Amino acid sequence: MKITRYHLEPQTGTAFELKRGQVLRIIDPEGEQVSDVVAFAREDHSERLSSGRSLDYNNTIYLTTGHVLYSNRSNPMFSILADRVGKHDFLLTPCSPETFEILYKDHEGYHPSCLENLTKNLQRFGIVQDDIPTAFNVFMNVDVLSSGELKIGPPLSKPGDFVDLRAEMDLVVGITACSAEKSNNHSFKPINLEVHGYERRFAPQDSSSRA
Amino acid sequence: MKITRYHLEPQTGTAFELKRGQVLRIIDPEGEQVSDVVAFAREDHSERLSSGRSLDYNNTIYLTTGHVLYSNRSNPMFSILADRVGKHDFLLTPCSPETFEILYKDHEGYHPSCLENLTKNLQRFGIVQDDIPTAFNVFMNVDVLSSGELKIGPPLSKPGDFVDLRAEMDLVVGITACSAEKSNNHSFKPINLEVHGYERRFAPQDSSSRA
Repeated sequence: MKITRYHLEPQTGTAFELKRGQVLRIIDPEGEQVSDVVAFAREDHSERLSSGRSLDYNNTIYLTTGHVLYSNRSNPMFSILADRVGKHDFLLTPCSPETFEILYKDHEGYHPSCLENLTKNLQRFGIVQDDIPTAFNVFMNVDVLSSGELKIGPPLSKPGDFVDLRAEMDLVVGITACSAEKSNNHSFKPINLEVHGYERRFAPQDSSSRA
Repeated sequence: MKITRYHLEPQTGTAFELKRGQVLRIIDPEGEQVSDVVAFAREDHSERLSSGRSLDYNNTIYLTTGHVLYSNRSNPMFSILADRVGKHDFLLTPCSPETFEILYKDHEGYHPSCLENLTKNLQRFGIVQDDIPTAFNVFMNVDVLSSGELKIGPPLSKPGDFVDLRAEMDLVVGITACSAEKSNNHSFKPINLEVHGYERRFAPQDSSSRA
């Protein structure tokens, strides 16, 4: 099986197409790093990942193995096939220049952000910043206290931990190595990606030829 | 002060413009009814209400008096001026035909939904269904258990309870009397609205004339 590998340097991002059936493995090579993932239907970018639909249909804020991530049209976009960590966030938007202004009081001047990295990389697919939804924040460790307050802790991911997302439709995916201090225990690290692919049109033949 | 009143029959919706500074009062006349609210910048509908930005910047899932609801461009859209209930949901999307298929196992055939009611009413502003974001679900009572599981209970609103939202920019607002059994303790009820308005261009003069 063909495997395509990507390496995201700290505080960067990328975007690429995934075919239905391909599996995206998101790897935290050093541990305690977050990766923001967004997705759009390749055929019509108005169909995009929906946090609200996904939380609603799975009836939990913690999506893990066996759960499905839905689009704003209620179609499955990803299935989670494997998850070595079990705690990810789907409440919060990608960090943006305004995130650092509003939430990081001690910050001044330019700060790299996931929103900028997603915008920059999704641009060549004709996707604009306004349409970037709440991301599936892989490895991000957010607790909801009984008061409703949100508490961001260091990611639970250890070196080499990963999550496998199977594309349930043809997709354009945007993905980052997160730029926010608070999300990554105050140290920026890389993210590795693998796309486990196959030529979909040959898959049924391969399967039947074993009979 | 001019007050415009709207009455939403059970399982219906409406849409209208709000000027910056106007206050939208959302009233539950009978108690235990939910109202889904979405908003778009009047000048550019690509700027819309963002659950992710709002939860992030307020650092809580329970928004109430003093909190600000933000757009996808991180601009304030609403301030919550008053809140007689204190528990609302900003995690879940408006109920849709698919909601009833996926989540309501005993349901068959057509079911009215907030997404349809929002789409129908926002159409005349040129806003399409794909762009309707996760709603601010006023009076909706959702708990997040420590496992992450979501638990929808009957709304805490009693007859006459209300929430006041001040528009922080010129807006197009879509709003419903929710159609989902589970959200409203299995009985559909109306929602009343009041827009407490003034002619904004006279406001500074009025204020200075008192000096």
